Amino acid sequence: MISARQFPVLVEVGLRPGIADPQGATIERALPALGFDGVRTVRAGKAFRLTVDATDRDDAQARATDIADRLLANPVIETYEVTVFEAESPNAASSS
Amino acid sequence: MISARQFPVLVEVGLRPGIADPQGATIERALPALGFDGVRTVRAGKAFRLTVDATDRDDAQARATDIADRLLANPVIETYEVTVFEAESPNAASSS
Repeated sequence: MISARQFPVLVEVGLRPGIADPQGATIERALPALGFDGVRTVRAGKAFRLTVDATDRDDAQARATDIADRLLANPVIETYEVTVFEAESPNAASSS
Repeated sequence: MISARQFPVLVEVGLRPGIADPQGATIERALPALGFDGVRTVRAGKAFRLTVDATDRDDAQARATDIADRLLANPVIETYEVTVFEAESPNAASSS
């Protein structure tokens, strides 16, 4: 049996600075009308939550980065940030 | 002059568990064909980066949560998580 653990991963994908972001700009313009002043530079992006089987955190980070680079982000116009969280313990019991 | 500082904020918006996520499901199915095995439960969501003027971190958290609840997320089908980062120092100078 493979001793892989399951690591929760967050991949945040955002547009590179300078790339036009109409969704973010629209939110930015809508905020004052809703009573929210003092909010600037709204940028809209994507957030992917995955669970990655890996032997350790570094392995999970490497695999998730590869996935982000090849599948989740378009490196020409987007940047991404990969955050690996601690693996769920295989014998964790939920005590409601 | 108001002594507000600018706090960078990340608002992560995701679908509630049980709500169908065709985008995440499609990614999940595509991964093995690209050579990525052992990835499960892919969920696609949104990530918004804002800069919020606030007097302190708690104030920034409260304002961003209000914005997330009223504008960025649909609480019927989505959940959100607000993360406030340390304010940029007003006298920070970029070296280079």
